[in-house]
Order: sequence, then C-alpha cells, then structure tokens
Amino acid sequence: MLPRTPEETAAVVRALAAEGVAFVPRGAGTGLSGGTLPVGAPVMVCTSRLQAIEAIDVANRRVVVQAGVVNAWISAAVRGHGLHYAPDPSSQPACTIGGNVAENSGGPHTLKYGVTTNHVLGLELVLPSGEVVRLGGAVEERVGYDLVGLAVGAEGTFGLVTRATLRLVRNPEGYRTALAVFDSVEAASEAVSDVIAAGIVPAALEMMDRLIIGAVEAAYRIGLPTDAGAVLLVELDGPAAGLDGLLAEVDAVCRRRGAREVRVARDDAERAALWKARKRALGAVGRLAPSYCTQDGVVPRTKVPDILRAIAAAAERHRLRIGNVFHAGDGNIHPILLFDERNADECARVLAAGREILEACVALGGSVTGEHGIGVEKIAQMPLLFSPDDLLAMTRLRAVFDPEQRANPHKVFPDAKVCVETRTPRRQVPV
Amino acid sequence: MLPRTPEETAAVVRALAAEGVAFVPRGAGTGLSGGTLPVGAPVMVCTSRLQAIEAIDVANRRVVVQAGVVNAWISAAVRGHGLHYAPDPSSQPACTIGGNVAENSGGPHTLKYGVTTNHVLGLELVLPSGEVVRLGGAVEERVGYDLVGLAVGAEGTFGLVTRATLRLVRNPEGYRTALAVFDSVEAASEAVSDVIAAGIVPAALEMMDRLIIGAVEAAYRIGLPTDAGAVLLVELDGPAAGLDGLLAEVDAVCRRRGAREVRVARDDAERAALWKARKRALGAVGRLAPSYCTQDGVVPRTKVPDILRAIAAAAERHRLRIGNVFHAGDGNIHPILLFDERNADECARVLAAGREILEACVALGGSVTGEHGIGVEKIAQMPLLFSPDDLLAMTRLRAVFDPEQRANPHKVFPDAKVCVETRTPRRQVPV
Repeated sequence: MLPRTPEETAAVVRALAAEGVAFVPRGAGTGLSGGTLPVGAPVMVCTSRLQAIEAIDVANRRVVVQAGVVNAWISAAVRGHGLHYAPDPSSQPACTIGGNVAENSGGPHTLKYGVTTNHVLGLELVLPSGEVVRLGGAVEERVGYDLVGLAVGAEGTFGLVTRATLRLVRNPEGYRTALAVFDSVEAASEAVSDVIAAGIVPAALEMMDRLIIGAVEAAYRIGLPTDAGAVLLVELDGPAAGLDGLLAEVDAVCRRRGAREVRVARDDAERAALWKARKRALGAVGRLAPSYCTQDGVVPRTKVPDILRAIAAAAERHRLRIGNVFHAGDGNIHPILLFDERNADECARVLAAGREILEACVALGGSVTGEHGIGVEKIAQMPLLFSPDDLLAMTRLRAVFDPEQRANPHKVFPDAKVCVETRTPRRQVPV
Repeated sequence: MLPRTPEETAAVVRALAAEGVAFVPRGAGTGLSGGTLPVGAPVMVCTSRLQAIEAIDVANRRVVVQAGVVNAWISAAVRGHGLHYAPDPSSQPACTIGGNVAENSGGPHTLKYGVTTNHVLGLELVLPSGEVVRLGGAVEERVGYDLVGLAVGAEGTFGLVTRATLRLVRNPEGYRTALAVFDSVEAASEAVSDVIAAGIVPAALEMMDRLIIGAVEAAYRIGLPTDAGAVLLVELDGPAAGLDGLLAEVDAVCRRRGAREVRVARDDAERAALWKARKRALGAVGRLAPSYCTQDGVVPRTKVPDILRAIAAAAERHRLRIGNVFHAGDGNIHPILLFDERNADECARVLAAGREILEACVALGGSVTGEHGIGVEKIAQMPLLFSPDDLLAMTRLRAVFDPEQRANPHKVFPDAKVCVETRTPRRQVPV
C-alpha cells in the first residue's frame, strides 16, 4: 500500500484491522537489520509518499514533518535559518523520518548531539487498531509515562508513525575537520580514548581501517593514505573562537599516539570530500567482494581496542576479510565482513564470525546493536542480553499497543519462524 | 521500612508481595507533587539508607550508585577527576537519585545538559513482585524497547529503583555567570527569546521577578536590586577561549532589551552567591507569607511572555500575590502562590488560580508539569492532556509491571479517591 497522506494511512490500517490482517510499516527500506522485510507475508504499508514538511517553527526550533520526509530534506529546508536536524545516518539522502524514528537512528554526529530519540518531541502514531494517537508535543518535558521515548526504536511493533515533531539544532558558528593518519588501528584507538579523556567532545570521531581506506580511495580518489593502518576523521564544532585551540589539542593528542600526519580541511569543499568518503564508505566496499555484511555492535568506548582485537581474531579464525568503519567516539563498531554469497561455506563462516563479534561486544559490557536495530537479523542474539522473563515483559508491553501482534510480526523478539530466516545473510544496501 | 541494601529492599518488596500489600517508594521526600505521600495507607519503603557509590569509572565517565545516594554527593565524589553529574534540581543537597529517577528531575543546568533521563544508562528495578530486573547497561544504546526511558519518570508506579548507572559530564573549562537587571518581566522575557534566537545555548538561563528578588535579598543580602522588575541569571560554560565573546553577545542582547545593568561574577565566590540566591529562592519565600504553593508548568519558550501575563491575570482575578522564579530558557515556569493555609477562602483561590495557570500552559501548547511530576497534585489535570483512551493505554502499560497496582497506588492516574485528596494545598518544602 502506498497511501498519500497520514489520514489515508490511518484508513488503510483501519481496513487491515477490520480484516485482522498483519502489516509491516516501511519507509525507504534502507534499514540494515531487516526491519521492513515482510516476514509471514503481511501487507506492506509504505509511508514514503507522506512527504510534507507541515510546519517550520524557527523561534521554538522545531518542525512538524510527515513520516515520508527524507532525513536530509529537513536540514535543507531550514538551512536559511541557520538550523539543522542533527541525527545524520549515512543513508540520510534516502532514509525517511518514519524509519529513523522506528529504528532510533544514529549517525556520526550523534557523538555530540545524541540519537533520534533525543530529537523527537512528539509523534502521531497509527495503532494497529487504526486508532490515531498523538504522543508528546511541542515541549521537551513528557508528562506521565514517556510514550514518545517508548515508541522511538520500537521498530514498528507498536504501529506506524505518520507525523513527527522534531527538534532543530542551531548550526555551529564554525567547524574544524581533520584527518589523522595512523600506522595501526591500535594507535588510532588509543588516540580516541585520549581525545575523550582530555575532555574534548568532538562533533564526530570516526575511524576507517586500511581495508576501508583502500576501497574508499579507489572509489573517490580524494588522496587518502592507502598505506596507513587507520585514519581518524575528527570534526570539532562550536563558537569560532575556541576551535583552533581545540584543534591544536586534538593534533597534539594524535601525534603523541604516533599519528604521522594530521590533515585539516582547508575549506568547505575539502570538508565535504572527507565526509563523502566516510558516508559513502560502504558503497565503495562493493568493489572489494561480491557481497558484504555490515555488522553493528557497541562497547564502552574504552573497550574499542579490545573489540577490534576480537574482530581481527574472528577474521583470522574464519578466514575472512573484515574491514572497519565506525563511530569510534561512541564505541559503536561496524565491522564489514566480505564474502561471496554464492559460496555456502563462506556464508556460514560470515554468520559464525558475526555471532562471535556480537558475543564479544556483550562480554565487554556492550550490546548487539549500536544503531541498526534488531529487525530480523539480531533476534537470535536477544537472549544474550535478556532473560526469558525480560523478553516476556517486553512482549506484554507490546501487547498493550498491539494485542494481536499484527504490527511488524516476527520482528525484534525471538519466535521459531524467524530463527530459521536469519540463517541466510543478504547483500545489504549501503547506509 | 528502612532497608540498608538493595538486596534487603528486594526482600522487603518480596515479603509485601507475598501478603499482597501495597507500598510507596520514598527517597528523601523532597518531591513537590506529593509522589511519596502514602495515599491509601500503603507501607512506605525508604531507600534513603542505600548510600553507597559502588563504582566510579572515570575513563567511560559513569558511576554506579545506590538509590539513596544524594544527588550532590556524586559531583563531590568525582570532582577530583574534573567530572560532575549534570542534573541539578534545587533540592540537590538533599534529594536522592532514586527520587530523581522516579520524577525525571530537572534543574537550571538542564537547559544545556538535559534532564535525568538523558543521564541514566541503566537501572536496577525491584518490580512489585519482588523480582529484580536490570534495565539498560553501560552503553548509551538501548536494545529492544527503551525500558530505562520508560522507568525514568514513572513516579514509582513500576516498582522501586535500587541502583542506577549514571553518565558523568566533563566539567567545562570555564564559566561566565552574569546577572542582567530589567525593569519588567516582559523585557527580561524578550531578552531570553533573543539570547536563544542568537544561537547561544547558555548552561542556565533563570528568571526571578520583583517579589522573589525582594525575598531573596532580605534573606541572603547579596546585593540584588530590589527595585528591579526582574533579573536574569545567565551562565555560560565551555572552552575558555569562547566565553568572553559569548558573554559580550549576551550583554549586548540584554542591553538592547533595556537591561539597566549586566553584572558579571568576578570570581567563584560571587558565582556561588548568585547560585545560592537562585537555588534557595523558595526557602526565602517563607518570609513573605505563612504558606506558599510552588506551581510547575511548561510552555514553548516563545510563549513565556504570554504565560507570565496569564499568571499576572490569575493573581489579580483571585487577589493573590504570585512570585516567579523559573527556568526561562526551557519555558519551565514556577509561579509561587503566597497564602495563609488557615484561611479557607484563600486556599480555594490558590487552587483555582493554580488550575487556571496550568490550563493556560496547555492552551499555549505546553504541559501541566515541567519537572515536578504528577504525583497526587496534578492528577486532576491529566485529562487536560490525555483522552480517556490515552489514560487507559497508560494504565495497561502500568499493569505490565504492576498488575495488582500495589506500587505507589493512587498516583499519577485519575481515580476517585485522589481527586478529593488534592483539594487541600500543603505548605511545601523548598526545593
């Protein structure tokens, strides 16, 4: 179904409710954990045509948008007012706000600005019954239970978001964007810890390892050092007066950890090129192998060196090439496992390595998804984090909104059907 | 009951569960909406003796504390590491983390740093059954439903918090704290809007009106201008390099809106005196009348002038003196209604004026509590914000955790009993 308005969407859901038919909400379909796959053949309800930016309130710094508005459109619409929408998943030229809300999307700049849930003030939600509820509102305080917070990241299991009221963030007065070049990922990881320990909160702090640098440079030719072990992309923002001082501190920290070079973007074009390299890194990876699997996990940020060692060990143990491009400042890792999906043995090894990496995240005090959600991909890992009682409580919580389990069935929570489905990895779209 | 450990607390709750007895969780009892009043004679379970700071993790900037740890102790404990715990309710020398979590407490510095829910990574919660669940963890990302976010602000209706893992924030490199003196609250309100519109995010932006200034000056004698219509307390923090530039901007904005003076604290002692004046303002109000009622509401920040007019109109209509001391930058208002509780007619007028002010908040797009919670005080106002269906959904949500409604009964949600109880205002402790 491709309804054109929030009201049509609600009518569709009401009609499905009358017939007792299950449905899966879908935005642009860019999600990486399979949240929009139609498991169990439900009706797919796409909100991608709900494209209106309904209100821009500059003084109170908020917008009201329909679910199908593409993430990047919002910042484009308010640029003239010196504002932007902060959460910036790499898929932002394509992904929609409905999906961002469902997955609680992150992005490089969430290190400083927080993830989607920190930027949603209110939601219009069509419950599986077809009833339309408005959660939250125009102010930050949420009275009673925090239903907005509960709905953000619920992956479509409470129904379908049709409208959202979002916070806007003032554009910083200035930026400094630098690329620090290291001989090893270990040295780069130590520099990340030191930057944070120095009390600096970069707007973004991203790492790419040698495999990814090679792929990105082959694709975009922006002059990345292909012989480096790792690069850190560091962005500082804030009042113009403080930026050069902060940059000097970051430069000193990186050099103390052995950075052979710290390149600073001289203008907006150079800054844009560095960000293009980072945000399109996954697209470039397509050159390296017929298929790849982007894993997603998170560890406390002091554990980044440990998880990188665990990833390298898993690569060696399973004879796989694994690249790393990730939000180092958050401890949010994205190992990219290269394979050929026509090779059944290699597929099995990718799945085994992925499982081991996620288990290592949990063992290090982290979690099985940093920002991509559970979807169908991580259902089998939920018991690593939650006891049967925990999962039962969540299922009962879901039943408050979706007693018949018709909204995005067979997602997030373990059931027999889906454990089988997740055995086959799929080639993923770059996000 | 005054258990001494989280484990004893759980044992107490298990014993109550076995007998089917209701209970009310209580921290230091400083809450302003009556959340810890034992309505319906439940057993009071106090967590105030659970005083251990169990772990301080400097590298990952987090602490694990028991529920009875006083808010201010945490910042004191990590001061040597250049860190602090950001949420700073005025009651912070007395209030405990368990209560802060239950009420999702705010404070002046939440303008820049966010309220309690933005700083809680994990919780240990004793469910009404006595079962102990651990929600969230050591990393920011929350997998599955955001149960931590749901439990924060639930006002004890899901059970009793015994431990919390909290984020710490790096102390800023420097501060600038200034007092801008205006002839009227209107002019001060316009200056607030202009500061925000200029893209400045102060660490705090607080307003006090003439009535409050007079009370504070009489109590603390720090040289406040008692002939002023309003003062703004503005605090800027961040990298030292940018602060003087920001301060100059704030100074210029305030003077453009008619500030007759902008005094800057010259040292830590002067800064401390200004903050003491603000944080103890409610204590000083005790000099003005035998009783007072601190109301709490929130409006979009551009509506601050409108709500102040509505408050003044309510004061006139009901022949009451009402002072204002509040988080202007957030739009979070705190009108202080002075009265004598021995005067039944005046009590009735205080209640009527309070209701009208909250209705005005809602009419302006805001809400009936900015940070003090619903407790018993605001139950009657819940239908202003929520439809019967909304309230039913919340009640069903509560039943997931507390099927017998034994945890903090008769709170937050309307039931016949409590509507009667809220008719009598009480003298409130300063917070």
